[in-house]
Amino acid sequence: AEVKKIAVIAGDGIGPEVVAEAEKVLKRTEELFGYSFETEHALFGGIAIDEKGTPLPEETLAVCKNADAVLLGAVGGPKWDNNPKELRPETGLLGIRKALGLFSNLRPAVVFDCLKDASTLKPEVLEGTDLMVVRELTGGIYFGDKLRRQGEHGEEAVDTCVYNVAEVERIVRQAFEIAQKRRKKLASVDKANVLETSRLWREVVNRVAPDYPDVELEHVLVDNCAMQLLRRPASFDVIVTENMFGDILSDEAAMLTGSIGMLSSASMGEGAFGLYEPVHGSAPDIAGQNLANPIATILSLALMFRLTFGYGDAADAIEAAVADVLNAGHRTGDIAVDKSKAIGTREMGDLIVAAM
Amino acid sequence: AEVKKIAVIAGDGIGPEVVAEAEKVLKRTEELFGYSFETEHALFGGIAIDEKGTPLPEETLAVCKNADAVLLGAVGGPKWDNNPKELRPETGLLGIRKALGLFSNLRPAVVFDCLKDASTLKPEVLEGTDLMVVRELTGGIYFGDKLRRQGEHGEEAVDTCVYNVAEVERIVRQAFEIAQKRRKKLASVDKANVLETSRLWREVVNRVAPDYPDVELEHVLVDNCAMQLLRRPASFDVIVTENMFGDILSDEAAMLTGSIGMLSSASMGEGAFGLYEPVHGSAPDIAGQNLANPIATILSLALMFRLTFGYGDAADAIEAAVADVLNAGHRTGDIAVDKSKAIGTREMGDLIVAAM
Ligand SMILES: CC(C)[C@H](C(=O)O)[C@@H](O)C(=O)O
Ligand SMILES: CC(C)[C@H](C(=O)O)[C@@H](O)C(=O)O
Repeated sequence: AEVKKIAVIAGDGIGPEVVAEAEKVLKRTEELFGYSFETEHALFGGIAIDEKGTPLPEETLAVCKNADAVLLGAVGGPKWDNNPKELRPETGLLGIRKALGLFSNLRPAVVFDCLKDASTLKPEVLEGTDLMVVRELTGGIYFGDKLRRQGEHGEEAVDTCVYNVAEVERIVRQAFEIAQKRRKKLASVDKANVLETSRLWREVVNRVAPDYPDVELEHVLVDNCAMQLLRRPASFDVIVTENMFGDILSDEAAMLTGSIGMLSSASMGEGAFGLYEPVHGSAPDIAGQNLANPIATILSLALMFRLTFGYGDAADAIEAAVADVLNAGHRTGDIAVDKSKAIGTREMGDLIVAAM
Repeated sequence: AEVKKIAVIAGDGIGPEVVAEAEKVLKRTEELFGYSFETEHALFGGIAIDEKGTPLPEETLAVCKNADAVLLGAVGGPKWDNNPKELRPETGLLGIRKALGLFSNLRPAVVFDCLKDASTLKPEVLEGTDLMVVRELTGGIYFGDKLRRQGEHGEEAVDTCVYNVAEVERIVRQAFEIAQKRRKKLASVDKANVLETSRLWREVVNRVAPDYPDVELEHVLVDNCAMQLLRRPASFDVIVTENMFGDILSDEAAMLTGSIGMLSSASMGEGAFGLYEPVHGSAPDIAGQNLANPIATILSLALMFRLTFGYGDAADAIEAAVADVLNAGHRTGDIAVDKSKAIGTREMGDLIVAAM
C-alpha cells in the first residue's frame, strides 16, 4: 500500500505521553492491516517557543504541509501564559489553522457508557446524546483586524468580525453533508437578531438548504443554544456555527457529556487533509507522571484513519479495542471510580494495542 | 412619602398578564408600607410596531426618562421575526438600553427549593448554587459598526467589537462592589488569548483589583467558563463579562438552575435608575390564557424596590410572600409536578398579594 505521511506534534504537558501511546497504536495498525505510515516529528507550541523562539517554526509548517495528516497532542501551559502575543502557544495554534487552511473543526460530543455517571447532568437527560459541533475555524473575530487606539473616551480596543459568503457556504455545506450521514438534523447557530455577520450566515444557510432536502434544519440563537444544550442535549445531531460561538458551545457540549477526557476532534480543510487532536488540554499538573489518559488521542488517530485515509477497518478496530479495554474495567486515574486501581498512560496504551 | 414614578411596559405575549399581577403587588405594597407609586404605561416592542410603526416610540422613551424605574414584561414573538431590522422588537430592546444608559445587566441565577428537581443537573452538583452574572450591556459587538460590502471574495458582512477603558472600568468596579456585598468572589470572563478587547478588559480588571483587596479574583476564559458553569456552578459568586459573552453565559447559568421561569433581572445605569424584567421571554404560545407564571415579574418588582428605591422592607415582604405561597404547594403549570392541580396567572398573583 501507499505510504501515508503523518506529521506528529507532541507539544507540551501531557502531549508527548499521550502521543507516544497513539504511535504504538499506529505501529500495530501497520502490522495488522498492512498499511504503511511514515511519521515525522515537529516542534510546536511552548516547546517550540523554548527551543526555536517561536510557537510555529517554519520547518514545522513545512513538515505539516508535506504530510497527509497531522496528529497533535496538546499545547500550552502556565509557563508561557504571560508571554507577549507572538510568543504564546495559542498564537501558534491560530497560525497553524490559518496556514494549513483548516476551516472546519469537527467536535463529536458523545457519552461513553463507562462514563455516563461522570457527567453533572442527570443520566436520563443525557441518554442518547451524540452530537457533533461543526465550528468555522479560520474566520470571524478570531482573524479580523485588531487594534488599540485613542478614542473620544480614552484608550480603546477593537476586534473585527468578518465573514464572506464563500467562507460561510463551504462550512455550512460541509455540515449539511455530515448531517446527511448521521441523523439528518442540522441546527445552525447564530445571533441574527443582533449581528450583521449572523444575518449573512443565516441567508447563506437558507439559500443552500434546498440542496439538502433530506436534512431537517433549525436556526437557533446562540444564547438559546447554550440553554437548549443543557435542556435537551440528545435532541441535537449536527450543530454548525461560526468560530467564536463554536469555541464556547463545543466546550459546553463536551463538558456536558462528562466524557471530555475521551473526546477527539478533527480540523479539516478542502480535501482529505486534517489535523487531529484530543479535546482535552495539556494538563501540566500531571505531565510526565504516566497519569494521563491516552484514549482521546488514540481515538483522534482513529478519526484520522476514517476521515483522511478512508481506512474504516483500522478505525473500527481501534474503537473496538478501546471499548473492549474499558468494558474489561481498565481505567486511567481521570476516569477511575476506585483510584487505587487506576492504571498508567503506558499500560492503557499497551492494553489497547493488545486488544486490537 | 415621596411619590415614585414607575414606567410600566407590558409588551407582548404573556407580558401584559404577568405585569398585571406585579401591579397588584405594587398596589398592596402601597397599602402595607405607606409608599406611593405613580405608574405610567407605555407601548414597546411588537405591540408598538403594530400601533406606532416603531418598536421604541419617542413617547415611550419620554415616559421612561421621566420615571424613577421601568418595569418590563416581555417583548417579541414570531409575528415580527421576519420584519426588517428597524421593525423588530429586539431593535427596540437595544435602543432602550442605549437611550437610558443601562450599561449593566444583573442576572441572579439561584435555585428555588421547590424547583431543585427541575434542573437537568444533578441535585448534588447544583447544591448551593447562587451566582450573579454582571453583563456589560451597551458596548461591544452589539453596538459597534456593522456593514455589508463587496470584498475580494464576494459579499461580506462586518461587525465591530469596541470597548474603551472607561466602559470596562465602570462595569468591573460595579461587579467588584456587588461581590463585596456577597461571598466576595469575582470571576472575570474574557477571551484574552485571542481578542484585543479582552486584553484591554483584563488589563483594566487587574488595574482596579487592588482597590478591592477583600475580593478574590479569577480570570476565566469564556470557553472554560461555559464548562466550569456545568462542572462547579456552586463555586461561582459574581461573574463579570462583556456583552456578547454575558448574553450566552447568563442564559446558560439561568438554565442550569432549572428555575428560569422564576428569575428576575435588573438593567442599571449610573445612579439608582433601573429597568427590571423577568428573564423568561414572551411565550406567545401560552399568551392570553391565564397560564403564565407571574413570579419572575413579581420578583423583578421586588428587585426594583431593593436596588432603585431602597425599600428593603417591601422587597423582603414580597420575596417572603412568594416563598410562602410556593411552600404551601401552589404552582402554575410551568412549575407544577401535577399539572392537573396547576393554578392560573391571576390566582398566583392573588395568593402572593394575600400572603404579603
Ligand atoms: C487556545 C485557543 C486559542 C483555542 C481557541 O479558542 O480556538 C482553544 O480554545 C480551542 O478551542 O482550540
Ligand atoms: C433579544 C436580544 C437582542 C437580547 C440580547 O441579546 O441582549 C436578549 O437575548 C437578552 O439577553 O436580553
